[in-house]
Parts: sequence; structure tokens; C-alpha cells
Amino acid sequence: MENPSVEVNETDKKIPSVEVNETTGPFLELVRHQNKMAKIAPISGFPEHLPAGYLVEQEVIDILRRTFMLHGFVGIETRAVEPLSQLLAKGETSKEVYLLSRLQDSVVASDSVVSRQPSASSTDGSKQLGLHFDLTVPFARYVLENAGHLQFPFKRYQIQKVWRGERPQEGRYREFIQADIDVVGRDTLPAHYEVELPLVMADAFAKLAKLGVPPIKILVNNRQLSQGFYAGLGLTDIDAVLRCIDKLDKIGADAVIELLEKEAGATEEQAQACIELASINGQKGNEAALDAAQAVATKYGAGTELFQNGLSQLRALSASAEQRAPGVVEVDLKIARGLDYYTGSVYETVLVGHEDLGSICSGGRYDKLASDGKVSYPGVGMSVGVSRLVARLLRAGLVQVSRPSPTAVLVAVTSEETRPASDEIATKLRNREIPVEVAPTAAKYGKQIQYAEKRGIPFVFFGPDDENPQARVKDIRSGEQTEANADNWTPPAADLWPTLIKPSVEEA
Amino acid sequence: MENPSVEVNETDKKIPSVEVNETTGPFLELVRHQNKMAKIAPISGFPEHLPAGYLVEQEVIDILRRTFMLHGFVGIETRAVEPLSQLLAKGETSKEVYLLSRLQDSVVASDSVVSRQPSASSTDGSKQLGLHFDLTVPFARYVLENAGHLQFPFKRYQIQKVWRGERPQEGRYREFIQADIDVVGRDTLPAHYEVELPLVMADAFAKLAKLGVPPIKILVNNRQLSQGFYAGLGLTDIDAVLRCIDKLDKIGADAVIELLEKEAGATEEQAQACIELASINGQKGNEAALDAAQAVATKYGAGTELFQNGLSQLRALSASAEQRAPGVVEVDLKIARGLDYYTGSVYETVLVGHEDLGSICSGGRYDKLASDGKVSYPGVGMSVGVSRLVARLLRAGLVQVSRPSPTAVLVAVTSEETRPASDEIATKLRNREIPVEVAPTAAKYGKQIQYAEKRGIPFVFFGPDDENPQARVKDIRSGEQTEANADNWTPPAADLWPTLIKPSVEEA
Repeated sequence: MENPSVEVNETDKKIPSVEVNETTGPFLELVRHQNKMAKIAPISGFPEHLPAGYLVEQEVIDILRRTFMLHGFVGIETRAVEPLSQLLAKGETSKEVYLLSRLQDSVVASDSVVSRQPSASSTDGSKQLGLHFDLTVPFARYVLENAGHLQFPFKRYQIQKVWRGERPQEGRYREFIQADIDVVGRDTLPAHYEVELPLVMADAFAKLAKLGVPPIKILVNNRQLSQGFYAGLGLTDIDAVLRCIDKLDKIGADAVIELLEKEAGATEEQAQACIELASINGQKGNEAALDAAQAVATKYGAGTELFQNGLSQLRALSASAEQRAPGVVEVDLKIARGLDYYTGSVYETVLVGHEDLGSICSGGRYDKLASDGKVSYPGVGMSVGVSRLVARLLRAGLVQVSRPSPTAVLVAVTSEETRPASDEIATKLRNREIPVEVAPTAAKYGKQIQYAEKRGIPFVFFGPDDENPQARVKDIRSGEQTEANADNWTPPAADLWPTLIKPSVEEA
Repeated sequence: MENPSVEVNETDKKIPSVEVNETTGPFLELVRHQNKMAKIAPISGFPEHLPAGYLVEQEVIDILRRTFMLHGFVGIETRAVEPLSQLLAKGETSKEVYLLSRLQDSVVASDSVVSRQPSASSTDGSKQLGLHFDLTVPFARYVLENAGHLQFPFKRYQIQKVWRGERPQEGRYREFIQADIDVVGRDTLPAHYEVELPLVMADAFAKLAKLGVPPIKILVNNRQLSQGFYAGLGLTDIDAVLRCIDKLDKIGADAVIELLEKEAGATEEQAQACIELASINGQKGNEAALDAAQAVATKYGAGTELFQNGLSQLRALSASAEQRAPGVVEVDLKIARGLDYYTGSVYETVLVGHEDLGSICSGGRYDKLASDGKVSYPGVGMSVGVSRLVARLLRAGLVQVSRPSPTAVLVAVTSEETRPASDEIATKLRNREIPVEVAPTAAKYGKQIQYAEKRGIPFVFFGPDDENPQARVKDIRSGEQTEANADNWTPPAADLWPTLIKPSVEEA
């Protein structure tokens, strides 16, 4: 996933930090204990939402989850920690790992300073635990650990928080949610799953688009195509070439050519050829792009069997996608994905109009997710950066919630003595799956209506009182009041639960 | 939450550990790098579920979440980390905190040994981060941080993982899920919320009971009643008395009397009186229990104003509960809750028939959740131990899933050439919200049916083929096959999604 450069803490709010003084309750007795002021403030890279933002995030997750299940993906969740030795498998990201240590194992705590001593149990890489930084490493371990209990090909989804100790920037957090789907086979995995995965994502984002999420473009390439071409050119350090090409968007063609010469041992002509291939994309049609790729390979005599194999896989993906999700999947031969374990299709996804955000859904095919020495597990996976996506939706005002509270109906209270009657009305409504709360106090009706207004609760229900022998419900938006019976009155379906709505043009 | 004593790693599976050798894929290259065998094995205290167990956990969470929302609770989620200084507020649990450090800040990594050096940023308690060990401390901080953006009384639910570096036992994990509800006021909070919270939980568990979860008993007491009584006896170290009484179930009356004399400065008569009060419960009726409490207070001249206040609050809670959730709420005057911040109602909850598991839902009223020096935030909260509950449901076979896969229909594939036709059938069904997958290969139909059977997929859909001009669907449980049209055929509602079902008597 790419990233731009704005420093950011928070996603949907601007909060002044609060100084907390010493005359506080039990949860802040730490203040006294530590003998200094505790500062209540956001932590950079650990974003939190106000309730409306959380509703948006939950709705996005619910839609992803439901779509994954509609496509037959089985849910799992893995523990947040893995042995450090497993987490260090990917050199590139190992520096970002958060290590865990138990306070009781390793601290000598004095008044305000905690100094840690490495303890025996925390110095051994196989026992030392760290927080997972993605969902692929834990999934690989889960597959090996539970292989005897799983059915292959195993289609799984997994939606969880991950942690990376990176420098926080917009769209790049230290704690964030990923939503992954993978299909993993035992020894073999048919290529049609490489077509299926982006189409599952296209389906999910088509549903999200109805709520105001911009359309996506899934940019696809095939590692065999690129690697076959590089090999056909006579290049030998293919991983180095991929790493250089991966930087094309960030640093431009000239710098990549220089890099290819320096780091991948390319001649200028080889480097130029790499750029020529990588510059091909399907913005004017995938078919034309694929034909152009063939022409470039022929021109440089780099149409190896591996290249041809990759090209025909990409052609199949493009053709299926054109039929099932027209316009969503776009061939883009500069997509390299830095990680060296991809062996077939690779994917990145941009939000149209928000390309600056970088990829919000990436992945690819890998021939060995894991292996126990006898059996290997090839797979294909894609991962949605949920936090990155939701942060942009909120910041750019692309989606709105109809109200921040789940409550559709506030039942008014006439007096504390008659609160049980109000509770009974609430129970009747709730038993018919209507979200209800009862007013906090028997204040004047005007104040109770204000309570509803402040929370966006659309209806206030009044039980019978001295002046009105009949129960009534008031739509506080229109002011309209009608007689109502708690046994059968139901709010309009659109008001029942908070929903995501597209902001109207003038608001957006 | 209490705990029994069996050592346990896993909740719903028995997995042999797998030795991984050196000829593995990228995710296990660490093996080669570390130059030794990596052991893929569960980590004690960090339970994981197989897909069927995850479905049970998700269903329990969904029911809790939906019930909380039906009662007007607003969802939030907080970051997993808090400054260590905040986490140390509660002395009792501070030793259980997991500290975080960034690998890049603090390691000198050699081949297989990682030695950590305390770094400047990790020695200062206000900057050092730890994983939260409950959802109350983060919620208190969230309320202070966002007070200007929240409406009070603020009713919130929060369902997240928490971490404690405790010794793992059955029902006590190092990583587990809590589901909390709290109502927090600004300066004041009406007492009726102390009645509402256990009734929300009663509602949620009534829904869970339909799926096979045993009924619950919510045991309630009131801190004012107990503390008023102790003070009336002339005892002065009330916190010490509460801590002793909290051990009544574990160590018995005689040991508690001894402890009261030693640690709370009680005379034998005072200690006896404390036990007499704590032994009162509503097993034969709450009214009788409350009357007995009054009698004991009168007998010892300990019916202080605080006691009477607590008694009348408990009476109100008991009366409301009797009406709205008969038989669920039971007065139990030994409930003390160790933590010293409770100031009113206190709750613990047992699964009937599974009392050995300890409390699965606890909480109480606290007058100061937090304070910024000017405003204080009183609240009342309850927390469900989701992982503890689900682990018992799975181990004791109390609930079952109808199938582990979300898929209701497998679309058969006649040949790879006609896969697009099968995909089209799948899309048609899926567009009508039916969970579908397409067979992985064009194997013989018998093998495709076997694929469905192994996953519990109830239906296989066959498109037209050479022998059958008409599409058909087969219920593989009955073997019955009927003609079907992908545009309108729908599986029975009971088969559409995996559901939780009560095991039949002979299975349980």
C-alpha cells in the first residue's frame, strides 16, 4: 500500500487535549500516584472515531463480511500475537514489529520511571511475542497448524486489527483494520481463483458505491509476464528489478532507469525495455494493452514461455472481468508489488478520484503460502485497508450517517412514578425489533424532545397522560403528531436503524 | 471474574504441533534464517477457533451488539493501547499489563537471540504504551478526551479484545473479548440506569438462550448497603472489609472471619456480623432476603442512612427486575467486587449449571468514572466475558452450528470451458442474497457432491448439460433432485445461512 505525506493523528474529529488535575476519580488516580499531570490526548498513528465514524466503519465491515460470505468465504480470526521468529520472516517489515513484554517479567517501577530489564523469557526469538503486522503471516501459520481440520481449497475471510510501528501519515497508521480474503489449496490451486478474487472485491465495492463510496479500479498485472520478460532480456536479479519497478509511480522513469542500472545490473537498453513494458496500461482498453505487451516482448525478443503464460493468464482475467464487472479491472504492467513471494497475478486498487490515497486493496498469487516440508499451500489473496478507506470517506465527507444513535424512538417519561409504564411501552416496541430508549428524566416534554433532537432520534413516543388518554408519537423533524399504539406502531423502514447515506450535492 | 483451575490452551480443538523443516515457502524462511526448526503450535492463553467455533463467537457477538443497539447504546471502539501511566491506575491489575516496544527502537538482533535495550522513549511511563486490559480504562479516557462531542447521559457499547499477562487457566485467557455497556452521566446519573443495565443483559441472554446458551442468574448487591452496614458496626477500613468478603466463595466463612480480624481490624463479633449479612441471598425470594438484611442491620444497630439507602435501591432493582425479567436477578449480599471504585449496585452473573466458570458478566455503579477536575462523570457498567462464555459453550457442546461454511449452494462445473456458465448461475443466485460458490474443478459430479458434503453445503446446482437440457438442484442430504431456475429458485430459509442450533438431547 502506497502513502502520501501529510502528518495526521485523527480521522474524524479535532479534539483539544485535556489537562487532568489531581482531584480526580479512581481511573485517574494514576495522576496522583505518578505525581504529575496526566495528559489526555490522541496518540499519533492510533486513530479513534466518534460514534458516527464508528458506524461508518462498522457498515463498511458488515458489507465486506457479508459479500465475502455470499461468495463462500469462511470466517476465522487469529490471535493478535505471533512468535517474533515468525514475524521476522519478511525482512522488509520486520522493523515495524511491536514487541510485547509482561510488566511483571521485566520492570523495576519507581515513582514515574519504568526501566526494563531484558529477562530470560524475552530474549529468545522463538518465545518473544510481537503483534502481527498483517493477516497473511498469521493465516499461513493457522493453515499449517490446523491443516488436518480444514477443507482445501480453503476460502477464508479475516477482518482484524494489525499493528505497525511505522511513521504515521495520512492513510498510514500504527493500528489499523484489514479485511482479507484468501483461497489456499493443498499442493495445487486452479488459476480461476486468480480471476475470482478481484471480482469478489468488485462485488463488495459495487455495494459500497451505493452508499457513496467512490468507484474503484483494480489494477492487475502478472508476475510471470514481468519476470518472463526480464529474464528474456537477460536480466538475472529479478527481485531487484521488481523492487525498482515498484517505485515507478513514486520516483519516475528516469530515476528508475538509474536504479535498475545500479541495483539490478541492467544495461541502459534493458532498463529502457523494462520501462517500456511497465508503462503499458489498459486506460484505453485492456485488449490493446495486452497486444502492446506482446509487441514489446517481440521487439526485445523477450517473449519467453513464462512471459506467454503470464500474458495468457492476464488475458483470461481481463476477459472474465470485462464480462462480470465491466470497467473495474484494468491491466497495468507497472504493478509489481514489492514482496518477493508473489508468483502470478498481482493486484492494487485505487479509489477513482482519490488516487493520492494509494492502494486500498492489494494482493496476489503466491505458490507457497506455507509448507510443512511435505505439503505446500499455494494461494491467492487480497487485503482491503479498511482504516485507510474509512478515514478518507470521513475526511472527504463522501458518506454520512443518518444519525449517530441507534435509537429510533425515545419514550417520554411523565414522572418517575410512571417510569415503569414508559419502560413497558419501550419493551413492546423493542420486542418488535425497534431500537428504543426511555427518557433519562421526567423533565418537561420540551426538554425530552430536545434530548431526542440532539441525538438525531426521529420519534418521541408519549404514553397516555392526564391530558391525553391516548398514546401519541411525534416525528420531531416534521413536528407531526399522531395517535399510536405501542403494540403495532412501527417507524418507517428508512428510520428504523441508522444508515449510511450519500451526502446531497450541496453538502458534499 | 472468578476462575477455576484447569490449564488450557485451546477452546474447540486438539491440534498436534507441527514441526516445520527448512525447505519451506517465503513465510517460513525464518526457519532457515534462524537456523533451527520453527515450531508451529498454539500459544498458551491465546485461544483460536476453528471456523465452526468462530461462527459461534460471531453469532454471540452479533446478538449482544444488536440487543445493545435495540436499547439505544451507541457503539465505539478504542485503540488497543493506552499510555502505561493510565493503565497503572488500578494497582490490582497493573502487573498484568503487556508493554509494547518497537523492534527498531530497542533491539540488537543476532541470529537467534534478540536482546533489548531500554530506550529513552520506553522508559518514561507517560510515553510507554501498553495493551489495554479492560474496556473501562480506555472508555474513561475516551469520555474525557471527547466530552465536548458526546451527548450525556452517554450510553455506549464496546466489544473488543483485551489482554492480560495472567497465568492462563480455563476461562482465563491472556487475550480475550469483552462486550461492555456503560451509561455515563455528566455530574449526575439517575439511579434507574442501575436497574436498566442488568435488564439489558437479561434481554440479550434471553435471546442467546434460544440458541442453546444456558439461562443466567444476575447476582446483585449494593455497595451502600454493605458499606453502610460495616460503618454501622464501627468498622473503619471499609475497602479492606470488601476485599475480605470478596473471598467468601473461594476460602469460606471461617477463613474470611480470620482475615477480617487480621486485615480489617474487626472484632470477632464484627466479623461474624459481616458474614451474617453476606450470607443472605434471594435463592428463596428476593423480598425475604431484603427483609432479612433489614433484620440483621437492626439486630446489630448497623442500619445507617447509607445502609437504608442501599437497601431501598436494591429493593427497587429487585422489584423492576421481577416484573421485566422474572427469575433472572437474584439478591446476593456476598457480592462485593474487589475494585474500590464501585459506589452503588454491583453485579455478577453465573450461567446456571456452570457456576464453576465464575462470573460471565460483571460490573456496577461508580460515582466517578473520570473527572477533569471541573466535571465528574458517574456511570454504571457491565462487561460480558465473551471468550469465557463461548469457550464453555463449545467445550460443553451446548451449541452447534448447522454448517461451518457460509455456502448454501455449490454450483457444479461440467468443464473448464463452461465455467463461465456456472459463474453466471452463481451470480444470479448471489444477487438474490444466496451464499454460493462454484466447484473448484470440473471433476465428476460425484466428486463435486463430495466437495459439498465435506463442507456441509446442503445444495448442489447443476446447469444444463449434454444429458439434461434443464438446470437442476440436488438436496444432498435427502438426495432429492428437482428442476430449478437460477432466476427464481431459493433454498428454504433455514438453509440460507449457517445458524446456531441446540444440539438434540442424545447428541448433547
